[in-house]
Parts: sequence; structure tokens; C-alpha cells
Amino acid sequence: MTVRAYVVDQAAGPTRPYEYEPAPLGPLEVDVALTHSGICQTDMGLIDDHFGLNRFPAVAGHEGIGTVTAVGSAVDPQQLQIGRRVGVGAIAGSCFHCEWCLSGQQHLCPQKDDVIFRDQGGTFASHIRAGDWRHVIPIPDALRSAEAAPLLCAGTTVFNAIVEHGVRPTDRVAVVGIGGLGHLALQILRAWGCHVTAISTSADKEDDAHRFGADTFLTSDQVSQAGERFDFILDTVGADLPWDDYFATLRPRGKLCVVGVPASPFTINQMSILPASKSLVSAVVGPPAVTRQLMDFAARHHIQAKAEVFPRDQIDHAIDHVRNGRARYRAVIDLR
Amino acid sequence: MTVRAYVVDQAAGPTRPYEYEPAPLGPLEVDVALTHSGICQTDMGLIDDHFGLNRFPAVAGHEGIGTVTAVGSAVDPQQLQIGRRVGVGAIAGSCFHCEWCLSGQQHLCPQKDDVIFRDQGGTFASHIRAGDWRHVIPIPDALRSAEAAPLLCAGTTVFNAIVEHGVRPTDRVAVVGIGGLGHLALQILRAWGCHVTAISTSADKEDDAHRFGADTFLTSDQVSQAGERFDFILDTVGADLPWDDYFATLRPRGKLCVVGVPASPFTINQMSILPASKSLVSAVVGPPAVTRQLMDFAARHHIQAKAEVFPRDQIDHAIDHVRNGRARYRAVIDLR
Repeated sequence: MTVRAYVVDQAAGPTRPYEYEPAPLGPLEVDVALTHSGICQTDMGLIDDHFGLNRFPAVAGHEGIGTVTAVGSAVDPQQLQIGRRVGVGAIAGSCFHCEWCLSGQQHLCPQKDDVIFRDQGGTFASHIRAGDWRHVIPIPDALRSAEAAPLLCAGTTVFNAIVEHGVRPTDRVAVVGIGGLGHLALQILRAWGCHVTAISTSADKEDDAHRFGADTFLTSDQVSQAGERFDFILDTVGADLPWDDYFATLRPRGKLCVVGVPASPFTINQMSILPASKSLVSAVVGPPAVTRQLMDFAARHHIQAKAEVFPRDQIDHAIDHVRNGRARYRAVIDLR
Repeated sequence: MTVRAYVVDQAAGPTRPYEYEPAPLGPLEVDVALTHSGICQTDMGLIDDHFGLNRFPAVAGHEGIGTVTAVGSAVDPQQLQIGRRVGVGAIAGSCFHCEWCLSGQQHLCPQKDDVIFRDQGGTFASHIRAGDWRHVIPIPDALRSAEAAPLLCAGTTVFNAIVEHGVRPTDRVAVVGIGGLGHLALQILRAWGCHVTAISTSADKEDDAHRFGADTFLTSDQVSQAGERFDFILDTVGADLPWDDYFATLRPRGKLCVVGVPASPFTINQMSILPASKSLVSAVVGPPAVTRQLMDFAARHHIQAKAEVFPRDQIDHAIDHVRNGRARYRAVIDLR
């Protein structure tokens, strides 16, 4: 097997084709021939080196869907077979013996196989190798690959936040930022039974927000006048916000959940937290059990990314599209 | 009935005796002849006008214990009788029909009878009138009044934080500040089954901290080197802390819970919250069901405030003692 990857040699540089022969397959490993990969803002962190890691050459991508082509000797053949359509997300393996793995929080494993920080091992390639088959996610037949790929990182990030922080169907929730994560969060929360408000800097996203499931739409400059109304705010924008204005829209015991890293430290008035028992919380991707639940939930509720699909010879154009914030609402590369 | 109260006429002023005849008793109200009242830092907020409310003349106090002397016509005689030993804490009534009251979060009722912000209605007096009998807390026989009074605010504040945020007996927890709240938190968390670390600026509190239940003691200047070790931090000091140092001591998914209002806004590095799913949370007093649970728990586990008891003619001295942070660990006035 030859892997044909799209490697970036320097910060913000273009991709070039790069071929290599992978090492022999380990007993728990799985090879997947990819048909699609989402492009995530986190890929920009790697490609444009926002993380300051300068890990080049780099192969980005961590929302891959394809077909199993090889399984290691220890993979349970009842559970995962060659030919099965599967997804590989941001985390493709973990130790399965640390306290986090044992307690179902494998995404917190200190030895996790973190696809984003692998050397040249992302899903902008013909194949991806998962470090452990239990992190390889079967894709239900009801989900199309291009529209399911973004569920593997963007989707599971917002879904895990909802699960982890106990959002209830009776809650009134807000989604801040109607982009790759936000447009999935709206669909999920609508299906979850919540009253959903979309908040965006772009007034022209209102119609789409309603189509994705929002009951109400606010522009960002309406937030400071919105009053106390939300039980949970899911902030997907990864930017500095006027935090106190957002806390003022939370009802007592409300939570503001941040799933992207803002540019600056949080500065929050002490009375925004006390005395009404409000919280600043966060979430990052999710463990495989939660991603599997999401796939089932998405299939049942027709949740799918609104994906712009680019052929593989337009990968640099697709990356640039995401870099410039023009994706409506997620860019996906067809790798076939 | 004549109420003999200790009224303060101006910020940081001394008390003077003040007598008044209360209005006729309403149907849900209860009069309690007080024997003891704790003194809380929040009383200093009122007496020394840290809140900037300038509500004088003021009668402070919101940790009262005594004996029921009168009950309104709608009080259930099976549940509360004249002669019963009871406590009245920071919240002495609520509407019992709003969503917060109906869902067992009566301390968040917008119409709550907030003893601290009443005009001249605190427990530094011969009697207190509770606005609703369901907020009047029976005191188990096993608890002595002087040592139980601080459970009504200090105790329920830390106990509710533990309940609200789901602290588990398997957790490793830290209590920051070994004062009125902290010394009760250590006892409660020890009985809760946790591994307990006490953190104090005062190295000379180490022996006491161990007696209250701490397994480990750290001085504040050891925190920055302590490493990732806690699942939950209960910060009782109501002061600005080096928040990022404390977040660095939290394990993944850990919570830092603030129960006192710091002087300044929170400034927290974004990486202290993300990517390990940590949270900044808070709690304020608690609903009556939780205070009743605390009384039962305290009786069963011999949890009691370490109280310095002052006779009522030394009330100004006792207030000064608290004002200057000299209470070891809670000051209580004997009002008899």
C-alpha cells in the first residue's frame, strides 16, 4: 500500500503530493482508505502554525471517512471488518488502561493518538491509519460520507459539550457562532428538544439559522440587551467575546460553555459568576462512545453537515476557503 | 412581645439596644426567641457597608438558633410547634410558587426573604421572625446550639457547593481558606469520604486543619508548585487569588468553585479552562432541603463549628474580632 498525502512544508504554504509506504500494521491498528475529509479551523492552526509548533512537513485533516482496508491481528472481527465504512476523527487511539480510558473519557488519555499533532498523519491523504480500532467509528447507512465527515470533530465537540454538561430538552440554549460547529449544534439541540437561539455577527445567516433549527436569532450586538434568558450558552467561535454581556443572558445556575480557544485570557466580572451560581465551562471533542451516540442520533434525526465538497485537486483552494471564513458551513475534500 | 435588637446606626459603628413591637404574625410566619447567633463576614459587609448600600439603621446576623415562640395560622402543627429548637439562616422565606421554589432551589427565588438585606431584621436580636415556616430548620438534639449556628450560613454554603457540583467521595479536593467556612468544609468533606487538602496563608493553622479533617496541608505559596492533583477546589476566601496557579492544580474535568466574592474580576488564562475541560463554578447558600440534609449529616458525623462564644454585652467586641479576622474559627453571640 502506498499512502498519497497532501503535505504542507511551511507555515501557510500550499500542499504538495507526498507518497510513503506505511510501517507494518500493529495488532490494534486499522487502515482506512479515505473518500472524504472535512477541513476544520484546527487544521488552520496546524497549516498556518497558529499553535506556534512549526511542525513541518505536516499532513493536516482529522475528519476522515472511508473504507477499512486492513485490520490488525487483535481487532475483533465481529466488530470491525475490511470493507466497512468508518470514520476517524481527532483521536484515533488511546491506551485503554489509564483512569481516563477506563472511565470512558478516552479523549483525555495522556497517551492518546492525537491525529492533529501526529507527524504527517492526517486525513488529507488517500489513507489514514488509526492507532486503535476502538476509536474507529462505524458510519450508519443513513448518513452520506460528505455530510457525515464533519460530525467526527465539529459534531462530536458540540455533542460532547451537550452530554458532558447535562443540557436538558427543557433548557433554553444559545449557540454563538453559526459556522462549522454552530450549524451542527443548532441541528443537534433542535433534535435534543431545546428552545434554541442562534447568535451570529452575520445578520445574513438568519434564514439558514432557522433552517438548521434555531427558534430565535440574535445578532451579536443585540446580546447586551437580550436579558436573562438562557440556561446554557454554547460558544463555538474561539474568539474573545464581551463575556459579561453573555453571562447577563444566563439565568441562575446557567453555564457558558466554550469549545474554542479565545485569543486572550478570560476577564469576567466576579458578579457575573456569583451570586446566581453561574459557571464558565468547556469541552473538547469527545470519547468514542459519545461519537457513536452522535452517529446514531444524527442518523435518527437527519442531522448532517451542510458541506461544500471540493475535488482533491482543489485542496489548496478548499483550505483557502476555510482560512478566509467563507465555508458555508463546512468544507469537505473528496479524496477519491 | 418586645424584640430587643442590636442596631448599628452608621458604617462600622457600634451597636445600640433597640426595642420594637413586631407587626401581627402572618399565617406562614414563625417567631423564634434566639439563644445564639453566628457572626459571618457577610455581616461585616452590612455593618461596615462594604456593599455600599448604606442601609442604616441595620440589625445584622443571619445564623440564628433559638426556640419557636409563635407560629402563624397556616403552619402545619405536625411539622413545627412552639417550643421546638430551630435555626434561621440567610434565607427565611420564599414564594413557593416560582420555578425556583417549585424545583427545590428556593434560595434563588426572586422574592426570597433575604435576612441579610432586611431592614433591621437580623439575628443580632432577642427574636427573629421567619417569613415562611418551611425555611425554619429543626436542629437535631445531637447538635449544640453554639456550634450549630454557623452551619446555617457558613455550613450550608459549603455543603450546597459540594452537593450542587456533584463532589464524589472518591474525589481529591482542596479547601482554600481555613476560616469560618473552610473549617466546616474540611469536616464535611472528610465525612463525605474525600481526600482533603487544606490550603491557607497561615502555616500556623496546619495542626487545626488536620484536626478538622485535612489529609494534607499546603501553604498558599506552595500552590504554584503543587502539580495537577485535585478534582475539586472549594475556595472560601472571597479574595483575588492567582487563579491560573489554582487551575494548574486541577486534574482534567476539575472544577474550581468560588463561594465568596473576590475583590476584582476573574482573569483566567484561556488554557487554564481549555483544553482539559476545567470549569469555574460558584455556589451561594442553599435551599432548605439541603440545609436539613446538612443538619442530619452533621449530627451523624459530629460536624460542629469551632465557636468562640461571646456574651451579648460583648457583641461589639465580638464583631470587632470577626472584622479583624481573629475568629478561630467562628464567633457566636450568646443572646440569652
